[in-house]
Amino acid sequence: MAPAITTETAMTGSKPMLTSDELRKVAPALDAYTHNRLLGDVWKRPGLAPRDRSIVTLAALIARNQTIELAYHLNLALDNGVKPREISEIITHLAFYAGWANAMSAVAVAKDVFAARNIGAEELPAVAVTLLPINEAAEAQRATFVEEQFGATFPGVVQYTTDVLFRDLWLRPDLAPRDRSLVTVSALIANGQTAQLTPHLNRAMDNGLTQTEASEAITQLAFYVGWPNVFSAMPVAKDVFARRPH
Amino acid sequence: MAPAITTETAMTGSKPMLTSDELRKVAPALDAYTHNRLLGDVWKRPGLAPRDRSIVTLAALIARNQTIELAYHLNLALDNGVKPREISEIITHLAFYAGWANAMSAVAVAKDVFAARNIGAEELPAVAVTLLPINEAAEAQRATFVEEQFGATFPGVVQYTTDVLFRDLWLRPDLAPRDRSLVTVSALIANGQTAQLTPHLNRAMDNGLTQTEASEAITQLAFYVGWPNVFSAMPVAKDVFARRPH
Amino acid sequence: MAPAITTETAMTGSKPMLTSDELRKVAPALDAYTHNRLLGDVWKRPGLAPRDRSIVTLAALIARNQTIELAYHLNLALDNGVKPREISEIITHLAFYAGWANAMSAVAVAKDVFAARNIGAEELPAVAVTLLPINEAAEAQRATFVEEQFGATFPGVVQYTTDVLFRDLWLRPDLAPRDRSLVTVSALIANGQTAQLTPHLNRAMDNGLTQTEASEAITQLAFYVGWPNVFSAMPVAKDVFARRPH
Repeated sequence: MAPAITTETAMTGSKPMLTSDELRKVAPALDAYTHNRLLGDVWKRPGLAPRDRSIVTLAALIARNQTIELAYHLNLALDNGVKPREISEIITHLAFYAGWANAMSAVAVAKDVFAARNIGAEELPAVAVTLLPINEAAEAQRATFVEEQFGATFPGVVQYTTDVLFRDLWLRPDLAPRDRSLVTVSALIANGQTAQLTPHLNRAMDNGLTQTEASEAITQLAFYVGWPNVFSAMPVAKDVFARRPH
Repeated sequence: MAPAITTETAMTGSKPMLTSDELRKVAPALDAYTHNRLLGDVWKRPGLAPRDRSIVTLAALIARNQTIELAYHLNLALDNGVKPREISEIITHLAFYAGWANAMSAVAVAKDVFAARNIGAEELPAVAVTLLPINEAAEAQRATFVEEQFGATFPGVVQYTTDVLFRDLWLRPDLAPRDRSLVTVSALIANGQTAQLTPHLNRAMDNGLTQTEASEAITQLAFYVGWPNVFSAMPVAKDVFARRPH
Repeated sequence: MAPAITTETAMTGSKPMLTSDELRKVAPALDAYTHNRLLGDVWKRPGLAPRDRSIVTLAALIARNQTIELAYHLNLALDNGVKPREISEIITHLAFYAGWANAMSAVAVAKDVFAARNIGAEELPAVAVTLLPINEAAEAQRATFVEEQFGATFPGVVQYTTDVLFRDLWLRPDLAPRDRSLVTVSALIANGQTAQLTPHLNRAMDNGLTQTEASEAITQLAFYVGWPNVFSAMPVAKDVFARRPH
């Protein structure tokens, strides 16, 4: 169980880039909302563990290439029980789901956080790993569908989607498939890519994410990516929930 | 009435981050477009006051997390008559409508601009304020609609939307509802969130934004967020205009 | 013919901002994907020249305001045969298609790259140039269509679209129309603006971009802007391909 969040200094070994004092010199109300609503309320809601809220928040910040609070949230994630090897895989996963430069910007911040906490190579995933077993039937169905749609017109994308994403990246063992899905869904909502949300939210729930957790992840995202993206995502997610067997 | 814009140095107490000389060392044509078309033409168009063009531009930059010209545009906004307390509320508002980290990045720049101009706490909004009166009938209609759509599936988002956004943030008195709407509409277009544009543009016009002002705000945004976002927004805005009573 | 890509140091006069050693201290798998898949495979694919892959990559980074690897990719582009005057025009073009601040952020990086390579004013486009000839029939058709849709409601946008974009920017001679289209299409996909993709991909192909090149540009973009944006773009592009005369 991750420690309860009480104060900023208890939450993390790192300070936010802006102190409350600096924040109040521009936006006293924003400082109050941060403490009373976001840190003091949203992060403490039941239904999604602090560890998972950290994964959602990291995915949102990295997917949107926002580094100002990334050191703080990397430290908070580690304090909340996200493992260094999981953070390493989250960043690698987002290279593919948000773009290479997003991952590079995250590494530039994470390397200093890891160094300050003496996180060494033995706590990171190896390059060559024993992949998780694949569900060959489900993967064959996915690959056939994509091949039929795009094989003739986009052979490069189709090949890398199979070889690199679904037969390699998604099977790397140091981030559980459920967490990988949580990262992917968060990144899609963070970037307004609701067109891709249906298959990935279904995959997330197949991988063990509950409806309550998905709902709370979206509540967390309202604050970190803004209300409009969440209001565009909610009808899609609601439809996914409704169509799944109960 | 805000002062007429004549030259860069008359426009603002702050220099742009890039001088014309630096700009010409890479893109002489861009320097010419900046002076002849953007500063020398767009900003001087009738139909939207320089103060409002500054609000639109600040909202666009903050919503897209672009800090390179933010100090310059914060100074220009203050020169154009936007009050420090309004800037403070614009940033706070965008925490909710564009994401927390966007607001934090803006505060990091604004605190130096405010310090350089000796803007102190007495020019900023208090945390505890007397809220503007609420239109209970309209808010009940909005809340019922959202509750029916999402109350069962996304109770967290629905609760915060009512308690924090519509019964608190939108009623804070140091930014007029019409200006708050202008910020919201600009942020939606800046981030390509046209799916949320219809209700917010209607709210903006209910709050007093004229069709001409909306049209000119979108013209301003073409330059600051790019033509594609504006071409996606125009059919939606045109439809809003057409359906409103004349 | 651009030189074959073999190693990082052979690729470019500039180092990436993160060394492989730094990258491995956070994400060893990402370092391996970068070398084995991206630099060692995607960039070497047939169907799109390294010069064009550089144009696509620069457009993606600038359109998304990502500067962390921009110096590296500007140097790589120059090594791959993109001319300084073309880079100057790419940045200027993206001011209009991705937003003014994106272009300014790119200039801030490019000025140092140009200075380090002693690229002077004589290698840059003039402000006043002899414009390329315009296809008056096609431009009249475009202008009439846009005027009918938006002339009454958005006169400012309509005027600048004609005067500044299609009768000026697109006709500047230092970036070929086909390359200008490649930049535009890449920026649209980079920012998830698939609603504007159909006319611009048709224009690109009218300007000489082949279907194979378009397909490979989208493969390149999968890595630089992320899989979700590419999966949203592919159905649109496939439809464009299918509707064109063969």
